[in-house]
Amino acid sequence: SLPPGALPLCLRPPAWGSAARRPPGPPCRAFSNSRILVELDESSGVATMKFKSPPVNSLSLDFLTEFSISLEKLENNRACRGVIFTSAIPKIFSSGLDITEMCGKSTEHYAEFWRAVQEMWLRLYGSNMVTVAAVNGSSPAGGCLVALSCDYRIMVENPKFTIGLNEAQLGIVAPFWFKDTFVNVVGHRVAERCLQLGSLLPAPEAHRFGLVDELVPEEKLQEKAAAVMAQWLALPDHARQLTKSMMRKAVLDRLVAHREEDIQNFIRFTSKESIQKSLRTYMEMLKKKKS
Amino acid sequence: SLPPGALPLCLRPPAWGSAARRPPGPPCRAFSNSRILVELDESSGVATMKFKSPPVNSLSLDFLTEFSISLEKLENNRACRGVIFTSAIPKIFSSGLDITEMCGKSTEHYAEFWRAVQEMWLRLYGSNMVTVAAVNGSSPAGGCLVALSCDYRIMVENPKFTIGLNEAQLGIVAPFWFKDTFVNVVGHRVAERCLQLGSLLPAPEAHRFGLVDELVPEEKLQEKAAAVMAQWLALPDHARQLTKSMMRKAVLDRLVAHREEDIQNFIRFTSKESIQKSLRTYMEMLKKKKS
Amino acid sequence: SLPPGALPLCLRPPAWGSAARRPPGPPCRAFSNSRILVELDESSGVATMKFKSPPVNSLSLDFLTEFSISLEKLENNRACRGVIFTSAIPKIFSSGLDITEMCGKSTEHYAEFWRAVQEMWLRLYGSNMVTVAAVNGSSPAGGCLVALSCDYRIMVENPKFTIGLNEAQLGIVAPFWFKDTFVNVVGHRVAERCLQLGSLLPAPEAHRFGLVDELVPEEKLQEKAAAVMAQWLALPDHARQLTKSMMRKAVLDRLVAHREEDIQNFIRFTSKESIQKSLRTYMEMLKKKKS
Repeated sequence: SLPPGALPLCLRPPAWGSAARRPPGPPCRAFSNSRILVELDESSGVATMKFKSPPVNSLSLDFLTEFSISLEKLENNRACRGVIFTSAIPKIFSSGLDITEMCGKSTEHYAEFWRAVQEMWLRLYGSNMVTVAAVNGSSPAGGCLVALSCDYRIMVENPKFTIGLNEAQLGIVAPFWFKDTFVNVVGHRVAERCLQLGSLLPAPEAHRFGLVDELVPEEKLQEKAAAVMAQWLALPDHARQLTKSMMRKAVLDRLVAHREEDIQNFIRFTSKESIQKSLRTYMEMLKKKKS
Repeated sequence: SLPPGALPLCLRPPAWGSAARRPPGPPCRAFSNSRILVELDESSGVATMKFKSPPVNSLSLDFLTEFSISLEKLENNRACRGVIFTSAIPKIFSSGLDITEMCGKSTEHYAEFWRAVQEMWLRLYGSNMVTVAAVNGSSPAGGCLVALSCDYRIMVENPKFTIGLNEAQLGIVAPFWFKDTFVNVVGHRVAERCLQLGSLLPAPEAHRFGLVDELVPEEKLQEKAAAVMAQWLALPDHARQLTKSMMRKAVLDRLVAHREEDIQNFIRFTSKESIQKSLRTYMEMLKKKKS
Repeated sequence: SLPPGALPLCLRPPAWGSAARRPPGPPCRAFSNSRILVELDESSGVATMKFKSPPVNSLSLDFLTEFSISLEKLENNRACRGVIFTSAIPKIFSSGLDITEMCGKSTEHYAEFWRAVQEMWLRLYGSNMVTVAAVNGSSPAGGCLVALSCDYRIMVENPKFTIGLNEAQLGIVAPFWFKDTFVNVVGHRVAERCLQLGSLLPAPEAHRFGLVDELVPEEKLQEKAAAVMAQWLALPDHARQLTKSMMRKAVLDRLVAHREEDIQNFIRFTSKESIQKSLRTYMEMLKKKKS
């Protein structure tokens, strides 16, 4: 179900998908896990993946694993044609990559984590299903990537909610495929400026820059997401899927071609003492802020 | 007169250009055919190619052949520096590719037809002349491609007139060079969204998305087209032509490099029973609508 | 300090940097030359390069040489993190390439001149420092390139000041790397249209097309430039520099890979009698206009 360039990935059993890591979740129509609630409405063919990993839906290795497995299940389920992504946690869509996975761990762990980040993006950006982000809270860094990788982005119009690839603010660099995804959405100039500044844009500005497609009041979000989904599902699947693949293939292929190199880069960068130090400082800051 | 990448095409005598297929037309200043009226004003150096192939200026093999021959004649006429494209038929600019050419025919016919579509685009997108689309009616699919391939697009501001690459609505996929041409005009994001949805945009929305450059009242269209043409012709030809080629060469070269492959793709796709069936259904629908 | 692709250039001592060509300038905090005043505020880490080469800051071989040497010195000065470019001459930022360098000279001179133009761009577009253009006057052709190569462009809101790559108006063609830089700022469509028309846009239109990021009243320009610079310098240098390089590397690499070819193209084009004639005519026109 991924575009051609991503296919080799699917033929190998994913190393990260061991059942042991998945704790059992509550029963649900389609299936469910501990961090993501998945509901499939078989009459419309639309699933909802609701992030519920407190406190801030950070993209931990476990979260990413569940995300990819859930998405793969839906992709292989012929009753499912589209997925809406949203958050069950107030004020936050997703806080992005879980920094604890990048701090004080082994290089093997860094490799496993980064492969899971790549896998999430390859499956989402290359999904054959219609994907709609219903962004009901702030969405920095990796959270923004999830939204950027969908076919359509609707955001709650609250200016307190911000979105953006703010990696530069933390002293780190968004990988090339984050950048490619961003450029495909907002164009080269906006991407260059926002990435260098690590901009977190309030919803209205994000809309003006094209980072999100539409703003709605919070109470209208799910209704609007369903309406947009219905509009996209009115098209014949096959033609829409081939068209989507044609638009995204070059960028997907680029990561597939450089995947191991990208992992090694991540390990090399993350293992630097200077980076470790700044990540630890950042985590301390977050902890103090919380308490 | 095509950019470097397209030159090899010109060196071979075009297989589609047999005189036998062209019926004699009424006399006219420059020359004329049965489906396109060509007028050249030698004082200004501006030609007008007026589509008059009832009922809806569909791009049949004959139409495309006339189009390419007419354009080639103008290209080789040193008295001609610019061409305005418009329709002689009310409410429709061009309905796009003629579906009867894609239905129940031999693979040889499909190949000849597709080669003619490619040839039209290579000549138009790569033209050394200034090309202005005066869009005085709806312009779906291939009709939109004609407009997109010009240097400038002026459309009548009537919201009943729509324009767009709506192939996905018919269950078919716009080829990569339609997509490349579209991306060069509206950018990646708008192209991705509109191609997947097969959007036909009313004139005002088409203008807002950058698909057309300017809207005018119907009675001002030809005057405006002449004024825009004069502005572009104020530039020295040679520098303008090299600049145009620099902007478009990569996309033209891409089709030239994959031309046969693209024809085989078209044949393979069109020959599928599922596609034939959906095209037949679509034609039945059009017939019923007409009667 | 240039991105990887540009590095080979730095390893060779620049042929154009002979001290003999640089006349001694007045004393100044950092250093200074005859055509560009360079001031470095060590407390903020911000330098200002003020063009003061009457009558119109044209990019002569001497100017370009001073520009590149000044920029290299700042790049190697750890106390300097950002540069603001502005003009000391009323109403003009820079008039672009000095046409006298392209007229009636030897091919060796054309080669030396063009290499200096390339070097200026490679150093500026690839600079690790934050670069802000404070455009306080008109900025055609090469002057526009200087502004386009910065990280941010602020222009005085006076509609009498124009900016654009207007080469086509003079019968010449902007080289591919001018074009690439332009496309990265305004996108393919605006670039295609403006390059073919050789458009010089009044400041408000330049802002609307994205050619400049912001307009301010003349008296607020330096204050605004300082504020923007402070915003960009709030980011950690290393992450910002890697991000900038990621965005610009492909375009920088392209010139580096084709540098000699580009010089030969320039010589071949400039040496044509037709081009020489039109440049002489243009210079005559400028002289008459002046007197």
